[in-house]
Amino acid sequence: MVFLAKTSNSVYWKVVVDAIATLVEEATFEVNPSALSFRAMDPSHVALIDLYWPNTAFDNFECDKDVKFSVRISDFKKLMDRAGSKDTIEISMKDESSLIVRIISDYSSEFSIHLIESTYGPTPLPKLSFNAKAIIDLKTFRKILEDISTLADHVTISATKEKIVFSGKSDTGNVAVELISSSPALKLLEIKEDSKATYNVNYLTSISRAAKDISETISYEFSNKMPLRLQFQLTEQGGNISFYLAPRIEER
Amino acid sequence: MVFLAKTSNSVYWKVVVDAIATLVEEATFEVNPSALSFRAMDPSHVALIDLYWPNTAFDNFECDKDVKFSVRISDFKKLMDRAGSKDTIEISMKDESSLIVRIISDYSSEFSIHLIESTYGPTPLPKLSFNAKAIIDLKTFRKILEDISTLADHVTISATKEKIVFSGKSDTGNVAVELISSSPALKLLEIKEDSKATYNVNYLTSISRAAKDISETISYEFSNKMPLRLQFQLTEQGGNISFYLAPRIEER
Amino acid sequence: MVFLAKTSNSVYWKVVVDAIATLVEEATFEVNPSALSFRAMDPSHVALIDLYWPNTAFDNFECDKDVKFSVRISDFKKLMDRAGSKDTIEISMKDESSLIVRIISDYSSEFSIHLIESTYGPTPLPKLSFNAKAIIDLKTFRKILEDISTLADHVTISATKEKIVFSGKSDTGNVAVELISSSPALKLLEIKEDSKATYNVNYLTSISRAAKDISETISYEFSNKMPLRLQFQLTEQGGNISFYLAPRIEER
Repeated sequence: MVFLAKTSNSVYWKVVVDAIATLVEEATFEVNPSALSFRAMDPSHVALIDLYWPNTAFDNFECDKDVKFSVRISDFKKLMDRAGSKDTIEISMKDESSLIVRIISDYSSEFSIHLIESTYGPTPLPKLSFNAKAIIDLKTFRKILEDISTLADHVTISATKEKIVFSGKSDTGNVAVELISSSPALKLLEIKEDSKATYNVNYLTSISRAAKDISETISYEFSNKMPLRLQFQLTEQGGNISFYLAPRIEER
Repeated sequence: MVFLAKTSNSVYWKVVVDAIATLVEEATFEVNPSALSFRAMDPSHVALIDLYWPNTAFDNFECDKDVKFSVRISDFKKLMDRAGSKDTIEISMKDESSLIVRIISDYSSEFSIHLIESTYGPTPLPKLSFNAKAIIDLKTFRKILEDISTLADHVTISATKEKIVFSGKSDTGNVAVELISSSPALKLLEIKEDSKATYNVNYLTSISRAAKDISETISYEFSNKMPLRLQFQLTEQGGNISFYLAPRIEER
Repeated sequence: MVFLAKTSNSVYWKVVVDAIATLVEEATFEVNPSALSFRAMDPSHVALIDLYWPNTAFDNFECDKDVKFSVRISDFKKLMDRAGSKDTIEISMKDESSLIVRIISDYSSEFSIHLIESTYGPTPLPKLSFNAKAIIDLKTFRKILEDISTLADHVTISATKEKIVFSGKSDTGNVAVELISSSPALKLLEIKEDSKATYNVNYLTSISRAAKDISETISYEFSNKMPLRLQFQLTEQGGNISFYLAPRIEER
């Protein structure tokens, strides 16, 4: 056995797969004795996902050497869709040609999918400092993004000590949502410097949807006209997903 | 402020928008200090909607002069779809170029949509007298229309003191549903003269669907080979929607 | 009246229609004073359905002579879809040109559909003996078929005294599900001889879905590289549906 990782429910893997599926069609995971990880950008280099899933956050984790495996994410997702949320998931590799996914419910199903070749290269993390940080109720965040996307493709986020304003516009009209600092949906608001930037709504909507079964809040950080970072914790025993999104350069 | 109208839930507006969307793509509303109203026919001049929504049926209604505003109904509907049924809705105009829709839930979203130009002319109400009138349970009425539309595009309604018969036919076969005067679904049946006429099922289905969240019954009146009028009350404080539908002239 | 058959719920007819719709577009039913029956193959002669519904399994059954009637199954299904599960269904023929379907809920809807001409000829039942028989929990069976169809179009079933293995494969990978003889989902396992054969998954999925509202288990029997028979009981008073499926001849 090259590698085996077991979780007593399927929710974590579903979240991981949904998050990655917002960015890429083929995914390369890296496994070493201490963790499973994934890092890649979307083809247009606008967004980046960084997953870190330590061995302590699995029910069982065995790995005797560093190994990479690449899958078509839609195939992987099809298998995860077969699992009920309380089913046990066992991912393993006997050799480097295929990935074995065992779903254990009343009975046990064993899927084996061929691994794909991938032109994988390491993706460096952007070096960023953030002047504004908020932790926000995830349901409210998702609702606000849907409000914006009713009229607009991009959301401008403007954060001050007093409030965060989300706004968007299109040929049809414009939309603005204000969250004042005392709003119950705003769990934390830390402003070093007033910040304002514009981001693609679809990416934010997709990653927030992926997080919904695992987290009640989401953290986001950004700076004036700089990339945004969304973060949420993967399991109660650790692991997290960070999502970076480049700002839109406004046309004039 | 030219105009402001506030309702403590979104259901009334959703019904109004759904009803109007069955007929037209662009809608011109008229506002004056005493009421908001709408009246228009569909492009083929088969159906007419007449909405009257008095200021007393709003939680707050301010209007200092007569004004018209025209919107693409699909844009307006998109905004209303964002509102939960218990959200407060505030429609207002600061000037005559755009309409402001504020949806107030845990937080407040403000949408502003550009008004459109419209070649609006007044639509006179048809002068009609009706020989048959029924008030019918709305769920039953909708179910009967669905029964008919399983096989037919048009419904022939035949009303006598004893019963109402709904029927339809097509190349596949025919269908008939009888409601006797003592049926619990028939809340009222007033027949001055036996009446029979044929109407488009889709229009009746759409307008009945629009009414479903607001009314448990629907009133309809018609005469032999003459237009039909459907009516339901908009709010408990008043306001109503009347829907007129021309009969089908039978080919021979 | 040539024929009248009444059931106090619509579930049996919905199951019959759904089962037949998996095979053919036009269906010819045979009625005689003792039973209603149907037997036909799909156009590619891979699958056969045999329905036997005795008069004792109806609430009322009247038939004074042998008669056949042919319907477009999609038309028949549209009518059955209009019935709530607790509605009474009355199927009748006054003459040989049309079929009358009455659905009785709070009110009564009468549909009459024109019968179609059909080039109907008798279908003989295949003479088969089966070396393996299992009665299996229907929900589990359906879930296993869905597992298989995630990766494969065909399922290979291999049955021994110890276990049944369902497996499938495609270019993407392969999948296997084992049910050991002591599994609670396996109500019966009778093996005269180890058997293994491969069948089309879609047919099995469709017929199992049709049975779901009427039966908690399904019986299947097969022999090495031979056709499979699925069976389930139609009503508590009798009647049953048998479904035969030819094996796939493996390419080499």
